[in-house]
Amino acid sequence: VLQPPPATVGTSVAEVDTPALVVDLDAYERNLDRMAAVAAAAGVALRPHAKMHKSPSVTLDQVARGAVGACVQKVAEAEVLVRGGVEDVLVSNEVVGRTKVDRLAALAQHARIGVCVDDAAQVAALSTAAVEHGVELRVLVEVDVGAGRCGVVPGPDVVRLAAQVSSAPGLLLGGLQGYHGTAQHLRTHEERAAAVASAAELLRATTRLLDEAGLPYPVVSGGGTGTADIDATAGVWTELQVGSYAFMDADYARNLDRDGAPVHTYEQALFVLATVMSAARPGVAVVDAGLKALAVDSGLPQVHGRPGVGYVAASDEHGTLAVAAGVDAPRLGDRLLLVPGHCDPTVDRFDWYVGVRSGRVDAVWPVAARGAMH
Amino acid sequence: VLQPPPATVGTSVAEVDTPALVVDLDAYERNLDRMAAVAAAAGVALRPHAKMHKSPSVTLDQVARGAVGACVQKVAEAEVLVRGGVEDVLVSNEVVGRTKVDRLAALAQHARIGVCVDDAAQVAALSTAAVEHGVELRVLVEVDVGAGRCGVVPGPDVVRLAAQVSSAPGLLLGGLQGYHGTAQHLRTHEERAAAVASAAELLRATTRLLDEAGLPYPVVSGGGTGTADIDATAGVWTELQVGSYAFMDADYARNLDRDGAPVHTYEQALFVLATVMSAARPGVAVVDAGLKALAVDSGLPQVHGRPGVGYVAASDEHGTLAVAAGVDAPRLGDRLLLVPGHCDPTVDRFDWYVGVRSGRVDAVWPVAARGAMH
Repeated sequence: VLQPPPATVGTSVAEVDTPALVVDLDAYERNLDRMAAVAAAAGVALRPHAKMHKSPSVTLDQVARGAVGACVQKVAEAEVLVRGGVEDVLVSNEVVGRTKVDRLAALAQHARIGVCVDDAAQVAALSTAAVEHGVELRVLVEVDVGAGRCGVVPGPDVVRLAAQVSSAPGLLLGGLQGYHGTAQHLRTHEERAAAVASAAELLRATTRLLDEAGLPYPVVSGGGTGTADIDATAGVWTELQVGSYAFMDADYARNLDRDGAPVHTYEQALFVLATVMSAARPGVAVVDAGLKALAVDSGLPQVHGRPGVGYVAASDEHGTLAVAAGVDAPRLGDRLLLVPGHCDPTVDRFDWYVGVRSGRVDAVWPVAARGAMH
Repeated sequence: VLQPPPATVGTSVAEVDTPALVVDLDAYERNLDRMAAVAAAAGVALRPHAKMHKSPSVTLDQVARGAVGACVQKVAEAEVLVRGGVEDVLVSNEVVGRTKVDRLAALAQHARIGVCVDDAAQVAALSTAAVEHGVELRVLVEVDVGAGRCGVVPGPDVVRLAAQVSSAPGLLLGGLQGYHGTAQHLRTHEERAAAVASAAELLRATTRLLDEAGLPYPVVSGGGTGTADIDATAGVWTELQVGSYAFMDADYARNLDRDGAPVHTYEQALFVLATVMSAARPGVAVVDAGLKALAVDSGLPQVHGRPGVGYVAASDEHGTLAVAAGVDAPRLGDRLLLVPGHCDPTVDRFDWYVGVRSGRVDAVWPVAARGAMH
């Protein structure tokens, strides 16, 4: 059962019901502009990840600024994007199981669809489905460039799989995917640069093998918000899969630049608006946003613009705030903006975005692919 | 946008799309029977918490076994339960803000509704709304019995608040709530017994003050799955708010009994069914259920019935499994049952339950109050 939206367009932010997922639309648009400029300056394509925002509206805002399309992780997310008007979607992930592969091929009747593989059985399954549905699927061979998750180990196995794709009916060899997820959150610029350099070298060595085998790789896709500036100029990736930059979160805000200062290229545009619903003891306040409104896998949320007030414990529906000595404590009914520790799984808890500009609700739009896990 | 269900009644479990929230219906029903017997033997009422399961169907199964109604934490959850046929709902939480208080009073036109308070301003707001809607709201004064979250500190402040409720138009003084959340997860029986004894003594002292003031407390509500056996016989709680016992999770399974062995009163009935979607390297497999399908606040999920296979890392849409030496590794396409670390916020990620009996899908029912945070 979809919940009703917590806000109405045109009303004051003070009237938004809580907890609510709030987007500062000005900051969000500046973030989109900045990343578009980074990609344009480096001459790489932008294919922002929709797993983070789960919204065709956001993808269309990105496409309007030059993005070539979107990435997703799930077929169900791709379905929601295509239904919402997105014409080019890469499932930057392996798709396993007859039902899902069939749905992917059916979707390719309506949009340009790509997908990753790291196993010969998947190539065969995708080819069968593509032929049955009379479509062409672009297939990228995923290479494990250091994240240790999915992907073929760089080397001759990549060439074998690419050759299989290349000769499979209904499939078009799209190139390579090399995404280094763990590199995104390394704290110093030096660590991130070293991880990206290592990933880039593995991809370069792989492309040399493909060259020798006469196999094309029109696209090399990868990169993320934490390393985008390095990825863009590494000379190996042809498109960037950045996601979080549109909204940002407390964990990304802990990354440091070359000078050891927090990176502030992209602004915090995403908040969970919460209300103090208990303040029965001095120095403590409890807000109405806990584990079901905020992902805590990358740390607890931070209280925005209230120095000395810390979110110190999350239970299912409660967040406990501690107030430092000498600081005005939040009072019953006060409304606070929380910065989520991790944007992706926080967004996925909500049915609605509340877009805010100049203190008013400017847009209410669905988190259309929320729960799209299949 | 609500996602379509991942299964069809009557099909084999092998045909359920993944990730899916699977309930072993036999184990679930045995759990309901066992807790009903515990409450009946102790002569206390059962008011199971629906914040965990988010489903009127589950509440109705509990009511069929003698439960007096349900608890919830949010007005929106109460609305879903009442719409689903539940006739008695306690919001075991503070409700703050004009919109929410109005909705609560409106709901009391259709069911017996209770709510907690820990501040005089809330009493006034509830009274105004109850009078306006021509209803009576039962109000429990929440007492902080050691959890350090919401609730009035035990003592004269409780009496003052109870007296205010007692004389407020439209409100009925229902008694006290004293819930010790942190006690539920203390690992040894001795620790849990000590925490419950302390909470019980604080409540007893409070009831003596209410006796002196001539104020009634027909209900003293509290307790949880981890301490239910102790709560039921403590002689102070008149109704139990247990929730997790219906499904259980990996965190509760770490609680120990008097002999230091894992408590096994209630069976694991809730699983996330996942598929291996990458197995490109020896000793590693990746499943299609990560942070968006499983809550990790109380630890990573466990792989059910596969000794030597461990879920070692969760990213947004991936779970990485490590396979011990000498153990058969899961293969591409294999399907595994995962035991969530924490049931409540895991359930709240899914749109559908898949109820399973004897290897077949016996029921598909909505997680009707998923995302009901307001």
